[in-house]
Amino acid sequence: MPETVSGRESRILEIIETARAKRAKFRDTHITMSHGAGGKATTSLVEGLFAPAFASDALNALGDAGSVSADGLDLALTTDSFVVKPLSFPGGSIGELAVNGTVNDLAMAGARPLALTLSLVLEEGLPAQTLRAEVEAIAAAAREAGVEIVAGDTKVVERGHADGMYVCTTGLGLRDPRGKLAPDRLRAGERILVSGSIGEHGTAIMLARGELGLDADVESDTRPLWPLVDALLDAAGPAVSCLRDATRGGVASVLNELSRSSAVAMIVREGDVPVHPAVAGAAEILGIDPMYVANEGKFASLAGTMANAELNAFFRDDMKKRTK
Amino acid sequence: MPETVSGRESRILEIIETARAKRAKFRDTHITMSHGAGGKATTSLVEGLFAPAFASDALNALGDAGSVSADGLDLALTTDSFVVKPLSFPGGSIGELAVNGTVNDLAMAGARPLALTLSLVLEEGLPAQTLRAEVEAIAAAAREAGVEIVAGDTKVVERGHADGMYVCTTGLGLRDPRGKLAPDRLRAGERILVSGSIGEHGTAIMLARGELGLDADVESDTRPLWPLVDALLDAAGPAVSCLRDATRGGVASVLNELSRSSAVAMIVREGDVPVHPAVAGAAEILGIDPMYVANEGKFASLAGTMANAELNAFFRDDMKKRTK
Repeated sequence: MPETVSGRESRILEIIETARAKRAKFRDTHITMSHGAGGKATTSLVEGLFAPAFASDALNALGDAGSVSADGLDLALTTDSFVVKPLSFPGGSIGELAVNGTVNDLAMAGARPLALTLSLVLEEGLPAQTLRAEVEAIAAAAREAGVEIVAGDTKVVERGHADGMYVCTTGLGLRDPRGKLAPDRLRAGERILVSGSIGEHGTAIMLARGELGLDADVESDTRPLWPLVDALLDAAGPAVSCLRDATRGGVASVLNELSRSSAVAMIVREGDVPVHPAVAGAAEILGIDPMYVANEGKFASLAGTMANAELNAFFRDDMKKRTK
Repeated sequence: MPETVSGRESRILEIIETARAKRAKFRDTHITMSHGAGGKATTSLVEGLFAPAFASDALNALGDAGSVSADGLDLALTTDSFVVKPLSFPGGSIGELAVNGTVNDLAMAGARPLALTLSLVLEEGLPAQTLRAEVEAIAAAAREAGVEIVAGDTKVVERGHADGMYVCTTGLGLRDPRGKLAPDRLRAGERILVSGSIGEHGTAIMLARGELGLDADVESDTRPLWPLVDALLDAAGPAVSCLRDATRGGVASVLNELSRSSAVAMIVREGDVPVHPAVAGAAEILGIDPMYVANEGKFASLAGTMANAELNAFFRDDMKKRTK
């Protein structure tokens, strides 16, 4: 089954069939950091607690965004809380991240962003200057993504809570008819393409915390993905089965989630996944796998019928155009 | 100008004209608890920082929900973060509050709730039992409000942060054509009606904290307001200028905000505003004014042409029907 792959540049992973996994159960007695890390414990919370309690078809689909139908209109709704330490880091900051992260979840659902809401939890004593800087970052990111902030809320919590600020953004989008994307549409024989080098955001954050005594020139890859998705849907349309941005938990967690949703297994060749040398170096020293490190501007695209060469050309072109 | 008012039962406040207030400026150097309290400092943050930075028409309107137009559809989008200590209290809990609060913001915009998103920030070490209880409260409140939870997110922060949990809910609604509601539609001669006795939610929370050494039988009034608004729009339709739920900052803050938006002043007769004796008693001991205490199931309705007697009958009827 596994065909010969054409080397590092192709970024191709393969899909084979498997049995459908059982829904994970939530059996822990207390919440631990791992429940928020995007891996197995998070899945157990979503599949074992939230989805059954809310009996929601949209939640059960476990996509990046929920579906809402209004007067025949196919809308997508997605929400994300951002808790980042430190608040700013090489390549971005929490405000920019909050806008891009939510716009990207819409993009992954094949939805053009229409509007955002912004809910802030601020820590008592936060310098107004820090807030101003993040408000400006949010405004700039929203302008770049072409989306308006239409509603907001601010709460303040006592000193020592909230790490400066937590940001919750929710995005409303209109699903694009060119794409028929779903996490359960993957079939054996399809290919997975990663849209660029991985692990940069998470590595930049870890380095910025300064706890590791490491110094490397790695910037977060945070950026809005809708323009790229828009172009991809134009180029490939229905040939694309699914898109997923590889945030928390990295590319590995995305592949795990999609394997579960579609009842398929995936063959990943480490050498085919592009990793920036500085990221690879930091990961080696820290003993972590870049496949599990967060990205904020990369996605896995799952294409059935599109030819290998065409997809490669598409992403090479995007890499060239990227100014950031 | 001030007419004779017909006593406590009428719950009538009056509106007179005034000059338009200037936009508040944000000049503080640090964030304080007051920036989250819903009063003047919050207004300075919204009018002085957020609205100019985001240059958003929807935010500038300062309504309970933002407007989004999609293919001719008139949608409303609103977001709220809930930070409550303790997490549960007589009459409700943070989960129920988060659903009702957001559904109610949609209702105040004259919008029928379509979908909710739920974003949780959990504290490391939170007992799973507490989370389960809140997830069930959220599910029950969503069922009662007739709205589906279509997307979610969970983050976990280190022990000692987030007070157990913070909940951010965002609501999408479809504006009802029967209502033409706006915070700047108030005109001199109109009347303000409060939909019931005030100050219960905030008083219940203060008592539940147990810091005051006071014991009184006060329950939060948390409930979804859309059914009542639905009936009101049926009964009064275009005669209603504006609806606003009197949450953070209480009825007084709502009246202040609306005065600013519509360039009117209001005459409030204390004796005409219904207050439960237990709330009045607690407020007197604590030296606070129930007009500034939060509600979660009461709103101010601003009616131009509807007759006094009709509106009174409407709200009396609602009070009778309330099972909670």
